[in-house]
Amino acid sequence: MQKFRIESDSLGEVTVPADKYYGAQTARSLMHFAIGEDKMPLEVIRALALIKKAAAITNAELGLLPEEKKKWIVVACDEIYQGLWDDHFPLYVWQTGSGTQTNMNCNEVIANRANELAGFPLGSKSPVHPNDDVNRGQSSNDVFPTAMHIAAALSIHNRLLPEIAKLKDALEKKTKEFFPLLKIGRTHLMDATPISLGQEFSGYVCQIEMGLSKIQSSLTDIYGLAIGGTAVGTGINAHPRFGEKVAEKIAQWTGFPFYSAQNKFAYLAGHEPLMALSSSLKGLAASLFKIASDIRWMGSGPRCGLAELILPANEPGSSIMPGKVNPTQAEALSMVCLQVMGHDTAVAIAGSQGNFELNVFKPLIIWNILHSIRLLSDSCRNFRRFCIEGLQANVKKLKEYVDHSLMLITVLTPKIGYDQAAKIVKKAYSEDLSLKAAAVELGILTPDEYDRFVQPEKMVGLD
Amino acid sequence: MQKFRIESDSLGEVTVPADKYYGAQTARSLMHFAIGEDKMPLEVIRALALIKKAAAITNAELGLLPEEKKKWIVVACDEIYQGLWDDHFPLYVWQTGSGTQTNMNCNEVIANRANELAGFPLGSKSPVHPNDDVNRGQSSNDVFPTAMHIAAALSIHNRLLPEIAKLKDALEKKTKEFFPLLKIGRTHLMDATPISLGQEFSGYVCQIEMGLSKIQSSLTDIYGLAIGGTAVGTGINAHPRFGEKVAEKIAQWTGFPFYSAQNKFAYLAGHEPLMALSSSLKGLAASLFKIASDIRWMGSGPRCGLAELILPANEPGSSIMPGKVNPTQAEALSMVCLQVMGHDTAVAIAGSQGNFELNVFKPLIIWNILHSIRLLSDSCRNFRRFCIEGLQANVKKLKEYVDHSLMLITVLTPKIGYDQAAKIVKKAYSEDLSLKAAAVELGILTPDEYDRFVQPEKMVGLD
Amino acid sequence: MQKFRIESDSLGEVTVPADKYYGAQTARSLMHFAIGEDKMPLEVIRALALIKKAAAITNAELGLLPEEKKKWIVVACDEIYQGLWDDHFPLYVWQTGSGTQTNMNCNEVIANRANELAGFPLGSKSPVHPNDDVNRGQSSNDVFPTAMHIAAALSIHNRLLPEIAKLKDALEKKTKEFFPLLKIGRTHLMDATPISLGQEFSGYVCQIEMGLSKIQSSLTDIYGLAIGGTAVGTGINAHPRFGEKVAEKIAQWTGFPFYSAQNKFAYLAGHEPLMALSSSLKGLAASLFKIASDIRWMGSGPRCGLAELILPANEPGSSIMPGKVNPTQAEALSMVCLQVMGHDTAVAIAGSQGNFELNVFKPLIIWNILHSIRLLSDSCRNFRRFCIEGLQANVKKLKEYVDHSLMLITVLTPKIGYDQAAKIVKKAYSEDLSLKAAAVELGILTPDEYDRFVQPEKMVGLD
Amino acid sequence: MQKFRIESDSLGEVTVPADKYYGAQTARSLMHFAIGEDKMPLEVIRALALIKKAAAITNAELGLLPEEKKKWIVVACDEIYQGLWDDHFPLYVWQTGSGTQTNMNCNEVIANRANELAGFPLGSKSPVHPNDDVNRGQSSNDVFPTAMHIAAALSIHNRLLPEIAKLKDALEKKTKEFFPLLKIGRTHLMDATPISLGQEFSGYVCQIEMGLSKIQSSLTDIYGLAIGGTAVGTGINAHPRFGEKVAEKIAQWTGFPFYSAQNKFAYLAGHEPLMALSSSLKGLAASLFKIASDIRWMGSGPRCGLAELILPANEPGSSIMPGKVNPTQAEALSMVCLQVMGHDTAVAIAGSQGNFELNVFKPLIIWNILHSIRLLSDSCRNFRRFCIEGLQANVKKLKEYVDHSLMLITVLTPKIGYDQAAKIVKKAYSEDLSLKAAAVELGILTPDEYDRFVQPEKMVGLD
Repeated sequence: MQKFRIESDSLGEVTVPADKYYGAQTARSLMHFAIGEDKMPLEVIRALALIKKAAAITNAELGLLPEEKKKWIVVACDEIYQGLWDDHFPLYVWQTGSGTQTNMNCNEVIANRANELAGFPLGSKSPVHPNDDVNRGQSSNDVFPTAMHIAAALSIHNRLLPEIAKLKDALEKKTKEFFPLLKIGRTHLMDATPISLGQEFSGYVCQIEMGLSKIQSSLTDIYGLAIGGTAVGTGINAHPRFGEKVAEKIAQWTGFPFYSAQNKFAYLAGHEPLMALSSSLKGLAASLFKIASDIRWMGSGPRCGLAELILPANEPGSSIMPGKVNPTQAEALSMVCLQVMGHDTAVAIAGSQGNFELNVFKPLIIWNILHSIRLLSDSCRNFRRFCIEGLQANVKKLKEYVDHSLMLITVLTPKIGYDQAAKIVKKAYSEDLSLKAAAVELGILTPDEYDRFVQPEKMVGLD
Repeated sequence: MQKFRIESDSLGEVTVPADKYYGAQTARSLMHFAIGEDKMPLEVIRALALIKKAAAITNAELGLLPEEKKKWIVVACDEIYQGLWDDHFPLYVWQTGSGTQTNMNCNEVIANRANELAGFPLGSKSPVHPNDDVNRGQSSNDVFPTAMHIAAALSIHNRLLPEIAKLKDALEKKTKEFFPLLKIGRTHLMDATPISLGQEFSGYVCQIEMGLSKIQSSLTDIYGLAIGGTAVGTGINAHPRFGEKVAEKIAQWTGFPFYSAQNKFAYLAGHEPLMALSSSLKGLAASLFKIASDIRWMGSGPRCGLAELILPANEPGSSIMPGKVNPTQAEALSMVCLQVMGHDTAVAIAGSQGNFELNVFKPLIIWNILHSIRLLSDSCRNFRRFCIEGLQANVKKLKEYVDHSLMLITVLTPKIGYDQAAKIVKKAYSEDLSLKAAAVELGILTPDEYDRFVQPEKMVGLD
Repeated sequence: MQKFRIESDSLGEVTVPADKYYGAQTARSLMHFAIGEDKMPLEVIRALALIKKAAAITNAELGLLPEEKKKWIVVACDEIYQGLWDDHFPLYVWQTGSGTQTNMNCNEVIANRANELAGFPLGSKSPVHPNDDVNRGQSSNDVFPTAMHIAAALSIHNRLLPEIAKLKDALEKKTKEFFPLLKIGRTHLMDATPISLGQEFSGYVCQIEMGLSKIQSSLTDIYGLAIGGTAVGTGINAHPRFGEKVAEKIAQWTGFPFYSAQNKFAYLAGHEPLMALSSSLKGLAASLFKIASDIRWMGSGPRCGLAELILPANEPGSSIMPGKVNPTQAEALSMVCLQVMGHDTAVAIAGSQGNFELNVFKPLIIWNILHSIRLLSDSCRNFRRFCIEGLQANVKKLKEYVDHSLMLITVLTPKIGYDQAAKIVKKAYSEDLSLKAAAVELGILTPDEYDRFVQPEKMVGLD
Repeated sequence: MQKFRIESDSLGEVTVPADKYYGAQTARSLMHFAIGEDKMPLEVIRALALIKKAAAITNAELGLLPEEKKKWIVVACDEIYQGLWDDHFPLYVWQTGSGTQTNMNCNEVIANRANELAGFPLGSKSPVHPNDDVNRGQSSNDVFPTAMHIAAALSIHNRLLPEIAKLKDALEKKTKEFFPLLKIGRTHLMDATPISLGQEFSGYVCQIEMGLSKIQSSLTDIYGLAIGGTAVGTGINAHPRFGEKVAEKIAQWTGFPFYSAQNKFAYLAGHEPLMALSSSLKGLAASLFKIASDIRWMGSGPRCGLAELILPANEPGSSIMPGKVNPTQAEALSMVCLQVMGHDTAVAIAGSQGNFELNVFKPLIIWNILHSIRLLSDSCRNFRRFCIEGLQANVKKLKEYVDHSLMLITVLTPKIGYDQAAKIVKKAYSEDLSLKAAAVELGILTPDEYDRFVQPEKMVGLD
């Protein structure tokens, strides 16, 4: 049988499971916001722990918090950061739009744990008070967006950037490996002039590099923190140097250049930096979709498709068709890319819906962004490991296509003009001839001239 | 040298080009809302003319407008409906969110023209006053959404439905023509069991039918009109039977079952019916995108693609590659489909942004919807005429694929089991054998059995 | 220490945790698709259990599956449907785009459980084989979309419709309660003519009714099932009556009119019905956003906002500002609405991306739709219980606004004309007078006339 | 009666209006792509003229084009750039996805005009040939994306940046003007601690600065040009230094740092730079939406809203309610912002849909982006001129709100604790007292203490 204790807040008393360290406001939120199954991501909780620790130390430095209280708060924060209390952060994403309930969840767990360390019972709110001490110099309105930025930046650095870099490296390796392999170019899906398979892959590398660079440059504003703005951006109840000092500590602990944002009003009321980050994730998603799509198509077949690439066979592809192998990694990645686009739609609308001093779509914004980061990171990893690294070129097929393509004609236009060249193609196509045969039959070139002029390997600009 | 006259409204006097029939408020709008080049669509103006005519007749019937005034107003409305005064409706889409300025544009042109017919000078506002007479019993807040519904319904009926029907017919014709032609099925882009080319096209027909049915069913609510709600939905200053009588007349004149909406509040403050219509257009767009994409891919080649279909060559495809033919109709249609998705995003956000008694994103909503209707109608027509109707099957290629596909094996699984069947495919693929050869070599089937069991034409369920 | 057993599929052997009932293909999927934390929803698993059961019975009826096997399969399916084996369905959403891995997960658990019931060890694949028996007459390509439709329909019926109905009822109750209360209307956020608070709420009811009706009408196509189409829509390896008989059973068991879709090609290659359902959810979301927004604004204050409504105080609103109460339920609902819009974007793009015989964005589509249904259901419930049901009108404030509004003037325009009326307003506004004082001072009306003509309660059309 | 001449291309002969300088391919496009009314923007045509001129000079420098031909081509390009031939570019947006038809339109007009200058008849294709000379060293596939980048960059510089800068300046001016004016802060729409009106506006300035900076940084990649890549990115038929030399000339002529992109494959097959630009426009749109929304709300009233700001009265607001003034500029801007979001959705999906060597959604992408730029530019201008510059604060109302707000209590929490403070608010709210009265009655503070501690002007951090 579950045991309970009584916790209280400014609205009165609430029962809380006896083994939980959260307090009245968390319990109220659980009651009122049981919406779906999406929980506030632990990345946000961890970030809050960092902030609360930095705030306590800063307040102590400024003479606004006794050393003793600071000490206990810091221990509690460290423990939360290390993940010891994850079960005590049960709140849903779909709560108050300011994230206040999660901020209070954090204040409550820290206060209870700190009081326990100080030898007092859970729920005593003393000596450490969740609002007056743990939340000192803070408001959810600056703390929560600060946590959003920290969580986003750390996730980008710890999860996404390494996986993008590795995917890029894998594609670069393939670029080199495939460089000597001629293949037919395709524009409008139709046969075009040749290209090397490596050149095609170099385009993928470049697309990813552009995405990477956008993500990185969007971090500059993400490092700006709202902390110090408190309730409405004016910094009421915080020491004037509070924000700056907290940001310094967080920068030092994480190794990333976090700083106190100059204009707090904009950082509470809007989410321009996070919208830009989300857009950059969407941009990467669009690039990855294109890459996955190309690879799916080049791997299509084995006998009735393009069949230019052979993809690793990771699993039986069909429950009914034996021996079928499908481009499943590319599909999973493609789905993830569209999901990221959906997330960005939600983030962008949410970002436009601030009013006055606060945007109250904060949990939605950070949840979608962290979700996008996680999905992109994981699927970049899997796509690399289980698809790209094992890709093989179907050399025979590649050559066959190049040899038969009518678009080799293009190289002749500077010599014979576009209109004459078009005549050769027309004849070759309608009579199912080789280009050479058509050119010779029309008397436009001798066989010798044709062989001299039309050399696919000279058309790809590698020499 | 341009000549001007003075017009006035409740804010004072404004100069207006002497040859224009609009008045002060239109002139003010031109001054303040020169944003881009998107003009309020003429479909909306025509719908307004219908409404104003019905309103005048109704008011006269109810004894609220002298017969004389009614007569002149009706003539003016008829002329506008016939397009005689199109140049006098110069306003931009991006104006007041209620469309008031366009409603006043209409009131002003009608009043000026009516007064002219009555022998009075432009700008006299007498005997016919733009607000007191032409707008009698009305507010922009009910008139404009009424015009939105009429414009949308008429555009759907006059433009879109006929073109979708014709496209569906053309696809059905191809369905029959292509029914006997076996082709390889493709799932995950990989070779699967056979299908008839006609079956594939029958799927397109069904997709379009579902889209059509959604569009049609979304019209039910579109026929509901806001008229009679006036300023805030209560019907202030309109006769209680006004809305109903106006709707009846519009229904009679257009032949469509327009009716006075029961709850006017919802029809001023929200745009559920138009959002649903926009979504149904988006649904159709998604279907058309898939169809266009299949046709692009089946037409890919001519020598290095799937090459199962031959698309009409409408124009030289490339400025550099002679003889290239591209699936340009499918591309134009595909672009239109994505554009419609973009429009729907704008419409949906706008539809959520009403406040209290009014949604002030009305011009945006109707402009995007009419734009979507127009683009879909025109591109359905062109896609049909210049692509679908001239499609030819590449019979030789279709047969070649079916004959070589390893997935014919599927038909054997009920007989030999999935695992045995998978072994045959594996062997055939890795040793580049035919299925038959592999099956026989593995001793699983005799050549005879193979031929008896594996008959592609029996696999497509046509018998 | 965890124990393992060996399972095998057509690609070879794989180790599987000894206590799990899934087999080789599930294990492979776990290895290759550890992407994020989103699991295939149990609603889909339950739907698959229904399908597999119906398939086994149907096959037995058709003489294609021995009674014994059928019996065990049915028991296993019933157990899965009852939730006894939930832990054995660990797969991620972001897997193969056909959902094949989840279909095989289901086939494997059923086969293993059935074999266990038959007295054979896990992994024996005999007497019941996951492909040859459990998946008999089926392909993931028809089974999975069938499960998508069943899961969506049941979630709509079991979760969403009841909650929407209850929310509508609660709003209707408020409509009646608030009917006698006059309030100022607002258009463009500006003071307009009066309305009753109940009328305003009646608009919300109507908006929700329209949403409800769209959702319900979108179910018609959702009841159509792909089953019977097998691999590519032709029904290869399924008995011609298989689909129809399976659909009948599912209809009978669930009580909903599921049927075998006529054109299977469209149901495998596209997702028109689910796109339409998603759009209808988006439409509802837009309506709810507007309603939540109005209630947030009417509850704004308590002293510096509109303060027309008093919202229940469910929790302390601020970590820094004592005594603050926020419209948190409306915020949570608003976030959910935008999230649903994001989901719809993903679904719509995904729905357009089919190729040939298959759309491979199936897991994304069903996951987003079920997510939207869940979030809307739960937040409708909470919004109703914790916000709407406890709403109170601030009668004093409502009256104060109506009494002071300048827009009461509107009722005079049929009598004194728009231009005269405008003069009165202008004077009242610029000299901070009451309308009456201004009208009298301008000599347009006597005090008596004013009182006779301007009676707010007569302006709302309730009499 | 219209006269015609015969033009020809590789598919045969076509009639062309005798007074038009375009040729066969333009005429074919007009026939096949009459979709809607959206024309290829003139910004793209102008950009093409620049490119063709630079190409001709470059080819001449490289000895690949006779001086004479170059001279005539250059004259023709200059004339087009100056707008002398605008009527000769009639093509629709919804054409081939590569923009080939517009490229050929340009080649044809230039060739015809050049030949005319050389004394030859229109349609002669000699001495200057549209493909062999005007298009020399080029393909639509590199020329068109090059034109897209140039058109976008020039539009951003010429239209958008100046207008954003001016809007920012106007807001900065208001920031200063409004700095001394205290107002109530609002979070969750509820009364919060005070802020200065100028601080609120400083947030707007900061939001716009962030948007500006994103747009500017997205230009870096836009300056990269595809030119030199020709058909598939390999540069076939172009001199190796062609791209670089063309880019140099364009940079010199425009004054912007255009350069030849390093990896041409990525620039033909994807549109990462333009997607990023579109996203940055969407980001700005979200910011502007928030700003417009705040201003709409602060201007709400005049008697039943917040009434903190007085907006310029530019026009009568209502056709039925005399004297009504609406925040129409803010509404128009808000609509534009949502439209830009819709455009971005279309651009992002389109950007993901490239295949192999080409993305064939180019006209859609550039059309939406130029549309967004135009709408944002124009509405920023109008919003500034007709709304922001004339904004006035309602000083009386601002003060009234601050004086009555219960949230002034916040400043007391460091002194009396959160829980005590909450009690005061509760009492004041429920008994309709002033904070001071409640605090004194509860015996928590003396009147004197209250006055000393609670000074709104000290709460906004201005000292």
